[in-house]
Amino acid sequence: MDGQTYRGWPGLLAQYRSFLPVTESTPRLTLHEGNTPLIYAEVLSEQLDCHVYLKFEGANPTGSFKDRGMVMAVAKAKEAGKQTVICASTGNTSASAAAYAARAGLQAVILIPHGYVALGKLAQAVQYGARIVAIRGNFDRALEIVREVAEPLGMEIVNSINPYRLLGQQTAAFEICDVLGRAPDALYIPVGNAGNISAYWMGFEAYYHAGHVQSKPRMFGFEAEGAAAIVRGEPITSPETFATAIRIGNPASWDKAVHAADTSGGAIDFVTDDEIASAYRLIAREGVFAEPASAASVAGLMKRHRQGSLTPGETIVCVLTGNGLKDPDSAIRLAGDTAEVVDGDLQSVMAALGGTR
Amino acid sequence: MDGQTYRGWPGLLAQYRSFLPVTESTPRLTLHEGNTPLIYAEVLSEQLDCHVYLKFEGANPTGSFKDRGMVMAVAKAKEAGKQTVICASTGNTSASAAAYAARAGLQAVILIPHGYVALGKLAQAVQYGARIVAIRGNFDRALEIVREVAEPLGMEIVNSINPYRLLGQQTAAFEICDVLGRAPDALYIPVGNAGNISAYWMGFEAYYHAGHVQSKPRMFGFEAEGAAAIVRGEPITSPETFATAIRIGNPASWDKAVHAADTSGGAIDFVTDDEIASAYRLIAREGVFAEPASAASVAGLMKRHRQGSLTPGETIVCVLTGNGLKDPDSAIRLAGDTAEVVDGDLQSVMAALGGTR
Repeated sequence: MDGQTYRGWPGLLAQYRSFLPVTESTPRLTLHEGNTPLIYAEVLSEQLDCHVYLKFEGANPTGSFKDRGMVMAVAKAKEAGKQTVICASTGNTSASAAAYAARAGLQAVILIPHGYVALGKLAQAVQYGARIVAIRGNFDRALEIVREVAEPLGMEIVNSINPYRLLGQQTAAFEICDVLGRAPDALYIPVGNAGNISAYWMGFEAYYHAGHVQSKPRMFGFEAEGAAAIVRGEPITSPETFATAIRIGNPASWDKAVHAADTSGGAIDFVTDDEIASAYRLIAREGVFAEPASAASVAGLMKRHRQGSLTPGETIVCVLTGNGLKDPDSAIRLAGDTAEVVDGDLQSVMAALGGTR
Repeated sequence: MDGQTYRGWPGLLAQYRSFLPVTESTPRLTLHEGNTPLIYAEVLSEQLDCHVYLKFEGANPTGSFKDRGMVMAVAKAKEAGKQTVICASTGNTSASAAAYAARAGLQAVILIPHGYVALGKLAQAVQYGARIVAIRGNFDRALEIVREVAEPLGMEIVNSINPYRLLGQQTAAFEICDVLGRAPDALYIPVGNAGNISAYWMGFEAYYHAGHVQSKPRMFGFEAEGAAAIVRGEPITSPETFATAIRIGNPASWDKAVHAADTSGGAIDFVTDDEIASAYRLIAREGVFAEPASAASVAGLMKRHRQGSLTPGETIVCVLTGNGLKDPDSAIRLAGDTAEVVDGDLQSVMAALGGTR
């Protein structure tokens, strides 16, 4: 800030410096990511007789939890003297990489499979000035190429194999503990690539070992039924779910996620697309518009409620990983026929609305 | 929170209670709106030899500054015993009204002109469970009907004629002062309906009179050239600009906006669509993705810079009113042809990327 006073939230690298690999030479990179709302879910809490909170990660600068890891990864790339970061992504990762690269004065290169995605999904990355390269091949091929070209070209990979990503993502666990003054009893979280559940667990363990909290939550992760590799115990070749952000058939952090669930006394389970769609509406009823994939956490909570597995009075946090504005089409599609058409005279409108009171 | 500890940002009604019409009987409504990032614009600050900050209102729960006024308006509607809120809106207002109505347990009714807007623009309101009524008539007719039916049907109007809206919007000025530890020297802000510039000025005056700051900023508001009613001194019948959120030909808070600019030693001016598009890219270069209309503030700053009207070392805040995710199409359209297509073999990709280092 060039010597000016700044009394607001300083961003993750400054706020949680002692828990992160931040050194004197790490750039003070921030878009004031993190510090996302922990919203008390009033309807759900009453219905389930628990204290249910929604950790709304869609309030991050680029609209998803990816910003937590990306600020760390891009700062370390700059610290290492890199001028370009590269990743293969068609979604939230590309938006976050492009934003932090722009902020850091670096170039971002985004590899996507040619013809695979609508360019609209990449609006953010494009606007932030990323270079978009469409590969004739599938997504896996794009990721392979990223791994092959990064070193010879001197670029830093910011896909999930970058270890700084998970270190940065731990901070969401810190925030939850800071706001509640304790660790929750249970954390519910969508599982796609399985990195986020692993990072939360690292975070809760780190805070526990530092003496900031006296307990750790049970970790419950939920895959989409059509992409439930961990639950089924084998990679899914053609994963299918409308919750695109968790449509992943071979999670990169598979072992870490299983470890988090097992060690904490939690579980990895799956939820159906119908359950996700239903939870997506429950979340909106609380006033929150999240990405469909985000709703997997609440869908999992409802599933365990139906199974009679919740303890009355539990403090539960459900992670909502992304902003609903990332995927407005799903909202419209699931709502069906939404607008009624009425003549523009007073009598007609009064008649139509009379039943609304 | 039902008696649980909560140490995070409590939302606007709690945080700024003493400056707002919050009583014992006002519902403690919140989605933890406000507390939005004040982002130091590093590139712009260096280029203009000023301290330039971006107040990123897109980080609010529904993605725009409207949440500040809506939380106040909906809380007061509930306090007054209303069960339904109603507004005519095709954009940010409808999203915010629907979200806070859902949160408060009220029904929201949104009137839109039939055939006028793509339903995609209403994805948020739909998802939050608002009742959407399409009127055979134009937008002005929809607004007229809102005014006519609200009282007989016992509904609360939450369009900008609701006085609580501006009172809530003051809080953005409070936050800026709190974070900087002082008032900025100048505030730059887009002007559409002219309510927001009026609300910021009320906020700065209130903080000044309370002794929280020792000065007030000069207020610079910017209309789009094709919708510059205040600058031209007469309503515009068919306002035109790609910055849809400020495409308004007859601002509701016209007089208040002129008062804010005049009293503070500022001005209301206009910027062209080309200037807005150019500023939209400048903002992205800082790592922020805002709605096109948001860029009118930065476009105005660049205009005054070209005119030699800035003072070196000034502390300037530019308000970015909404999230770029509200209008991804503009990002794609303005970027033009964005993806290069390359064969999926190592040599081809190396050759294409070799020039990126």
